[in-house]
Amino acid sequence: MAIYFQFPFCHQVCKHNEDKTSTFAEILKFMEQKRTEVNELGEFGLIKHLTHSFENKNATSIKGVGDDAAIIDAGDDYLVVSTDLLMENIHFDLTYAPLKHVGYKAVVVNLSDIYSMNAIPQQITFSLAFSNRFSVEALEELYAGVKLACDHYNVDLVGGDTTSSLKGLLLSVTAIGRVPKSQVVYRNTAQVNDAICVTGDLGGAYLGLQLLEREKQVFLANPNMQPQFDNNTSLIKKLLKPEARKDIIEALAKADILPTSMMDISDGLSSELMHICAQSNVGCTIYEEQIPIFEDTYNQAIQFEIDPLNCALSGGDEYELLFTVHPDELEKVLDIEGVSHIGNVRPASVGKHIVTKGGNQYELKALGWTHF
Amino acid sequence: MAIYFQFPFCHQVCKHNEDKTSTFAEILKFMEQKRTEVNELGEFGLIKHLTHSFENKNATSIKGVGDDAAIIDAGDDYLVVSTDLLMENIHFDLTYAPLKHVGYKAVVVNLSDIYSMNAIPQQITFSLAFSNRFSVEALEELYAGVKLACDHYNVDLVGGDTTSSLKGLLLSVTAIGRVPKSQVVYRNTAQVNDAICVTGDLGGAYLGLQLLEREKQVFLANPNMQPQFDNNTSLIKKLLKPEARKDIIEALAKADILPTSMMDISDGLSSELMHICAQSNVGCTIYEEQIPIFEDTYNQAIQFEIDPLNCALSGGDEYELLFTVHPDELEKVLDIEGVSHIGNVRPASVGKHIVTKGGNQYELKALGWTHF
Repeated sequence: MAIYFQFPFCHQVCKHNEDKTSTFAEILKFMEQKRTEVNELGEFGLIKHLTHSFENKNATSIKGVGDDAAIIDAGDDYLVVSTDLLMENIHFDLTYAPLKHVGYKAVVVNLSDIYSMNAIPQQITFSLAFSNRFSVEALEELYAGVKLACDHYNVDLVGGDTTSSLKGLLLSVTAIGRVPKSQVVYRNTAQVNDAICVTGDLGGAYLGLQLLEREKQVFLANPNMQPQFDNNTSLIKKLLKPEARKDIIEALAKADILPTSMMDISDGLSSELMHICAQSNVGCTIYEEQIPIFEDTYNQAIQFEIDPLNCALSGGDEYELLFTVHPDELEKVLDIEGVSHIGNVRPASVGKHIVTKGGNQYELKALGWTHF
Repeated sequence: MAIYFQFPFCHQVCKHNEDKTSTFAEILKFMEQKRTEVNELGEFGLIKHLTHSFENKNATSIKGVGDDAAIIDAGDDYLVVSTDLLMENIHFDLTYAPLKHVGYKAVVVNLSDIYSMNAIPQQITFSLAFSNRFSVEALEELYAGVKLACDHYNVDLVGGDTTSSLKGLLLSVTAIGRVPKSQVVYRNTAQVNDAICVTGDLGGAYLGLQLLEREKQVFLANPNMQPQFDNNTSLIKKLLKPEARKDIIEALAKADILPTSMMDISDGLSSELMHICAQSNVGCTIYEEQIPIFEDTYNQAIQFEIDPLNCALSGGDEYELLFTVHPDELEKVLDIEGVSHIGNVRPASVGKHIVTKGGNQYELKALGWTHF
């Protein structure tokens, strides 16, 4: 029995509600009978379970829970709204992440969701809760990072909330973007035979995290040890100060290419590709040799005795874009610097596969990040 | 020296940033020299301090930090965006607040900010972080409250984020509303001679909190004791399940009355009235005998040996509306049920005063709620 329902007099309050569906005594009884753990459902299953009974009532609510961002009607344009919670010691570790980077990254990860709908972010709200461990100077560093991101991405800080927490730092960012109605790109509209593309390179942020965690342990054991990064700071930078792919969205617009579906790779390539396939009701084949892995990433993975391909398929926190285009557009897309063609959309009946360098075909598994 | 800056190798990462303003070694040095406590600035001072260097760059950002909500251009309408963080054991206590009420209230407090700009809320995002203390059934209760609020206020849940926390429950709600451009009401536009009005009655939520805290202590000392509420559940309901004044916004529109300024009373009447005065550059006189205090509130305050007037002036968590109207509109406004005329706007040079029932005039002090 969870402690938060132990107060026996609360049913007196519940009785005064207009809502007759449950008195507190009934809730109490119910809670004693049953306790389902959240990890039985997983993150996406949980959200689906908790929100399936909600129905949109306003004509201005174009798209709700289920894509990278929500969509709201705004005349000729759609407004695209995305929100993220970032918790200390779950999403960031202040042992090695400077507060300025934490502020920068908190903004960037939200902007990435806006870009992945093919929209241009214009506003953010930034809320924080912090314990008395944080001084004004520490918060100034955090906001310096927020400002750097706002300036770099041409976004305005228009609101937020500030409160105390009993322990640790907690950030909540909501980003708002804008896109002409005809240009919005969803994740459920990939078509069979479309080319599957990704931007940048994959797996670096995951290895950056492994490096920092290793050196953190060394440091905790002996604070006088100097860290060993072996010139791998590019991996660490990818983790601590990622960028959203504004440049790609601009290049696609300039080349007059509208992806048929798109999302960002915050939870890992495999996991995100499986979302696109499931929601578009299609399958896919991707090819190991076409997945972009940088030399630094490859070498560090080998040093850690991890398969570099697994880093690229399952490593989260990347913020690269995964998108599909009509096969006729492929040549034009590949003229954009930093875009790789990794495979093709197939009929759902064919399934979802990866073909290795050795020519073997395996079923693609979602090994994305899970918070639970 | 705060622990989050102790990692000596982070400057290696900082050196790789484009931003040359501070290496980590410099930050470290700076942090050692200086530590300003947040409570030296207060909540509003802190926000001002941290955000003063941010400038709006997008023409669609109409109003940013400083009102109840941000304003974004959306064709014929403005979109109004408000966000709140709610932390367990700071904003709510699950010892006596059922999760369904917590979910309901988390939505309502945000909608109240939207109404206070004279806008109609249409969408919310609802994010939560929770520890493994919370079961699926507990979260279902929370979402049942969210859904009840969404249905009651005709608002759509369009997004959110779900993650784990190391300790406790944390909610972040962003509400989005809509208002024709000519109908938006700010807090910095009160005019001398305007009538100052409030809705409902004040002080009840504060006394509800005192009652629940008293009974919590009794319960903690002896779990078999039954709570003593003396039929004061109306006060408790005001705290645990407040309503936003949708009805008033609708009645004002129907009567064709546009307030000259407006905000909600989340931090207490005195504090909010002083915000309107400061931002509108005006003074005010309000009258004790015109401040609406219900009999339950009055009697309970006397029983607690607290001045009922102080409960009404300083009690937070109310979500009633405070607004000003042109004196010619006063008669029409007072036809709306639940509106009280409590005083008048005066020139700034006159100052801000309250006149007691005995005819004495005192300077108004902001004794609003502070989280720090």
